[in-house]
Amino acid sequence: MEEVELKNGERLDYLLAEENMKIIQSPEVFAFSLDAVLLADFTYVPVKQGNILDLCTGNGVVPLLLSRRSRAHITGVEIQRRLYDMAKRNVTINDLNNQIDMVHGDLKDMPSQFGNGPFDLVTCNPPYFQTPKKDEQNSNEYLTIARHEIYCTLEDVVAACSKLVRPGGKVAMVHRPGRLVDLLTLFRKYKIEPKKLRFVYPKAGKEANILLIEGTRDGNPDLKMLPPLYAFDDQGNYTKELEDILYGKR
Amino acid sequence: MEEVELKNGERLDYLLAEENMKIIQSPEVFAFSLDAVLLADFTYVPVKQGNILDLCTGNGVVPLLLSRRSRAHITGVEIQRRLYDMAKRNVTINDLNNQIDMVHGDLKDMPSQFGNGPFDLVTCNPPYFQTPKKDEQNSNEYLTIARHEIYCTLEDVVAACSKLVRPGGKVAMVHRPGRLVDLLTLFRKYKIEPKKLRFVYPKAGKEANILLIEGTRDGNPDLKMLPPLYAFDDQGNYTKELEDILYGKR
Repeated sequence: MEEVELKNGERLDYLLAEENMKIIQSPEVFAFSLDAVLLADFTYVPVKQGNILDLCTGNGVVPLLLSRRSRAHITGVEIQRRLYDMAKRNVTINDLNNQIDMVHGDLKDMPSQFGNGPFDLVTCNPPYFQTPKKDEQNSNEYLTIARHEIYCTLEDVVAACSKLVRPGGKVAMVHRPGRLVDLLTLFRKYKIEPKKLRFVYPKAGKEANILLIEGTRDGNPDLKMLPPLYAFDDQGNYTKELEDILYGKR
Repeated sequence: MEEVELKNGERLDYLLAEENMKIIQSPEVFAFSLDAVLLADFTYVPVKQGNILDLCTGNGVVPLLLSRRSRAHITGVEIQRRLYDMAKRNVTINDLNNQIDMVHGDLKDMPSQFGNGPFDLVTCNPPYFQTPKKDEQNSNEYLTIARHEIYCTLEDVVAACSKLVRPGGKVAMVHRPGRLVDLLTLFRKYKIEPKKLRFVYPKAGKEANILLIEGTRDGNPDLKMLPPLYAFDDQGNYTKELEDILYGKR
């Protein structure tokens, strides 16, 4: 494992302890969430070769996790320089510079940077919250940008995915169930046919709080509703399935 | 219970044994499915008063079941005369002529018959299968019409619901998960904002095979993803929840 500098307020956490995979994060700037881990588990990946793009990559958690499942080249895009810098160091400390590149930029500019359709898969864990009022936003600018549609709307994200993925390629996202109608409508508008949906429930008997969606560029309508995933059992412990995902056992 | 005539091939089944609710059906013409029972359980109802409309009512199973949950007036609409006739007799044998009316007609004509927006709730268990090829259709005409989009497309159904429900009123439907994107897109196109979704799984670990959806005319976006419903447990028995629904225990 290469040495890298930890900056103010950052800490080095285990991402996958058994594989000695580590990740730099900072609660004040960006810490990866369960959502990113679920997205990296849920999505299709080209296994042996190909090109993957992760938009809104934050500290690079999704590319790091996908590198365990795929030998494809992975590019992460992050608009915030401080997070991009963290993501770069995360690639370095995990010795993944041969497989993962980080790009500092706006996802809306990526189609002109990469051209149309070079990617077999585009993943994204986008900002969840719409049109925030100033007084509802987090006073921390880093977190506000990561969580609110400040620099990109959901439509910007889907439009960029649609241009960047090849015909027949996949787009996978994680979001809140309340945005399902927007997601499906936008996917179809931008020619990404929804193919797989999975809902994550905090526990049995509760409403879902996380939504996973995958679509195929120019695909035919044929949606599969996957089995639900429960996060906790009745005793408040992780379910076996979530534990296996969190600890990289599948 | 009033006496009614049973016609050729028909039989009198229990709909809800404990409440002595019976239903005439005929496997060759129309027999109600689990889907209708789930729809009648899932949907919101105005409890004390109001007006409910059930499109594609078949032998009237949804109005019969809703009469247990609501004192509102219920109208069923069926395009096939033989099924309409069966539905009429089902109302009579259950002594529900004061609460339920049956109409023989095409749902596309109902907005001109009833005017715009008189109903607090419109329910529908529509034909599921699109654009059938002649050789894929059931050779039995009654079943073909009930199951395939012969006389109405999904868009016809949603458009009729939208006109017939009052602003703020509800529309509830049962369908196949593969049509989710179509349903959500059409609901939004016709100003019925999807509010509640529930998926029914044959058992844990399998993909969902039934979808329940409810929307509000002119509602604000705010979709709830309800807990999944499992039909069978690992031993192949009905789950407690499904049993309670089937036997009218809730």
